[in-house]
Amino acid sequence: MDRPPGSMWLGAPLEQLPTPALSLDRAKLRHNAEQMRERCQRLGLRLRPHVKTHKTLEGAELATGGSRRGLVVSTLAEARFFAAGGFDDILYGFPLPGPERMEECAALARRLEAFQLLIDTPQALALLRRHPLPPGKRWLVWLKLDCGNGRAGVLPTDPAALSLARAIAEDAPEEVALVGVYAHCGNTYGCRDIAAVQSVARDTTAAVLRFVAALRQAGVDCPQATIGSTPSCSHPVPEMAQLTELHPGNYLFYDLQQTLLGSCRPEDVAIRVLTRVVGHYPHRRQLLVDCGWAALSLHGYDQGPAGCAAVEGHPQLRLVGLTQEHGQLEAVDGQLDFGRFPLGTVLALVPFHACATAAMHPIYYVHAEGKVVELWHPVRGW
Amino acid sequence: MDRPPGSMWLGAPLEQLPTPALSLDRAKLRHNAEQMRERCQRLGLRLRPHVKTHKTLEGAELATGGSRRGLVVSTLAEARFFAAGGFDDILYGFPLPGPERMEECAALARRLEAFQLLIDTPQALALLRRHPLPPGKRWLVWLKLDCGNGRAGVLPTDPAALSLARAIAEDAPEEVALVGVYAHCGNTYGCRDIAAVQSVARDTTAAVLRFVAALRQAGVDCPQATIGSTPSCSHPVPEMAQLTELHPGNYLFYDLQQTLLGSCRPEDVAIRVLTRVVGHYPHRRQLLVDCGWAALSLHGYDQGPAGCAAVEGHPQLRLVGLTQEHGQLEAVDGQLDFGRFPLGTVLALVPFHACATAAMHPIYYVHAEGKVVELWHPVRGW
Repeated sequence: MDRPPGSMWLGAPLEQLPTPALSLDRAKLRHNAEQMRERCQRLGLRLRPHVKTHKTLEGAELATGGSRRGLVVSTLAEARFFAAGGFDDILYGFPLPGPERMEECAALARRLEAFQLLIDTPQALALLRRHPLPPGKRWLVWLKLDCGNGRAGVLPTDPAALSLARAIAEDAPEEVALVGVYAHCGNTYGCRDIAAVQSVARDTTAAVLRFVAALRQAGVDCPQATIGSTPSCSHPVPEMAQLTELHPGNYLFYDLQQTLLGSCRPEDVAIRVLTRVVGHYPHRRQLLVDCGWAALSLHGYDQGPAGCAAVEGHPQLRLVGLTQEHGQLEAVDGQLDFGRFPLGTVLALVPFHACATAAMHPIYYVHAEGKVVELWHPVRGW
Repeated sequence: MDRPPGSMWLGAPLEQLPTPALSLDRAKLRHNAEQMRERCQRLGLRLRPHVKTHKTLEGAELATGGSRRGLVVSTLAEARFFAAGGFDDILYGFPLPGPERMEECAALARRLEAFQLLIDTPQALALLRRHPLPPGKRWLVWLKLDCGNGRAGVLPTDPAALSLARAIAEDAPEEVALVGVYAHCGNTYGCRDIAAVQSVARDTTAAVLRFVAALRQAGVDCPQATIGSTPSCSHPVPEMAQLTELHPGNYLFYDLQQTLLGSCRPEDVAIRVLTRVVGHYPHRRQLLVDCGWAALSLHGYDQGPAGCAAVEGHPQLRLVGLTQEHGQLEAVDGQLDFGRFPLGTVLALVPFHACATAAMHPIYYVHAEGKVVELWHPVRGW
């Protein structure tokens, strides 16, 4: 039988890995997973981790504390992968696509105890009703609310939101059930500090809770209410205790962006891209490394290449160029000491956006005490 | 035996594909491949296509006109993939990495008739000398020149360039051979029009040819000389006929960036990302589609989300937001006619940078006359 790709590197010191390589610090992953679980416990909330950042069975195992129950996924490919991997209670956190994906959704609903969907239109509800599940199974539906993020979801103040919730709950209770309301406060990513993040989290929570109260008053049963985003869940406000779940995702890895937002300390970031110095160009005072956008992504590039990653332990170095497989580094003060970075030197880049960087890698090398201890293989595609 | 992923879609109309999906127009691929081959033929040059854009056996088959000989690859994973797929004469177009990759390079050199390497340092030459190949095999080496691109390569005006070329050619002729000199004029991507691109191509060609002449004068044999970049090779200048090879890559697909640079006509672009309308948000006059940066990349985003892709056939629509799996579209004039784009409508996005978009997809759906006729599966990793 073929061994999984990369398995010859199990036990190897990190510095021996072929580069570029995505490395994850196991102690930090565990710490981040535990912190978020404890945070939710203190609030009396269930943690339903979003798996889109890592897309791995191992990451989801860690994030669910081994229960393998209660995930959000961003694609049907993820839903199938985690279902096949023994996970259940999987919420497909994307507006229900059109009729062409209904057979896939129905197969997941038949297979799992709880395959759950998000909807934000009466058309999606009608689509579910046209595809009833076998007896004993109902479509489990969350209503997506837009509480200021401005992407998917119904505005909770729009009367259509209440009537859609009522329709989900009551139109065909033997076919479709209203599980809860779901809001993503991605607008926390536009914040400059923790206070601003918490203000968004407070507003989102209040909007969700007001909507749930209005539902209750209208006699509509809506058991669950959840909000998510790593910035808001890393510094939860007390009001969030009135929800039932949280669904952050990025926190398992964290990244440079989360550090800048105050979601984590720099030492909590578990993800790196390891790269080697492959060239010295003294005439332009630059190092070349074997990490380009193919291993890093261009996220953060609206601040120029330096926005895409920090060089761990070398604040005097900054990325000044990124092509497909090449990265160019300069000294901030223009005084690059080439002697400190001989050809072959391994550098660790802290990426701006872990979700985007992880998407570029077929293997993640998980390490403990400097040695590779696990290989994670993410799912991809749709 | 398992069928290759996606094979149930062979024969299906494009509009039925699960989205997001990367589609390639076979007639355009063939046209682009043929045009570039003819262009090189007219110049009397060999075309050595770079495969980093598509990373597929089928794309390389097309680009080599079926010969399966003469490629540039950007990673050792590509080199192994194409070697295993029956290709030969493969040039690894990246500065020779350190000792930890030498066993992989040696295995490729032993397996192939011609596995070729780029170097730009005496250290890399010394590394090759420390890893001699079996009798009858020599390391086949191209000297990388930096003729204004400012990335890898020795400056041709630097005396070190001539002495390195001489060392490659003469230090151990039974172990190492100087095949040629190689320059990438990636600086054409900073140009605003064809005249500027041609000026860069002219300068690069002149610098390469001056260097080759200097080598000849110094008695160093250097049979080959090549330059590449899709902009320069799409509008070659007559001087390029004095080289021996060209090595463009992106031209097989082309993209929005190449259209803007004048490398191709809009109708030559073979790549699209198909996406569906999944939401209507009249209160903010936006459509939501199921294509985010996970299917498109963020290349072009320094111009804002609208820089990342054009919506084919709908110049009045522009991308205004891209998250992992969501794209947001608005009308340029703010007057979005939702009736024209019912939920489920399939839209085709023309990506800014084909190399980056292709890197996000595990399957490419190749179509002819609106139906899927081939599935291409790219290699990834390093």
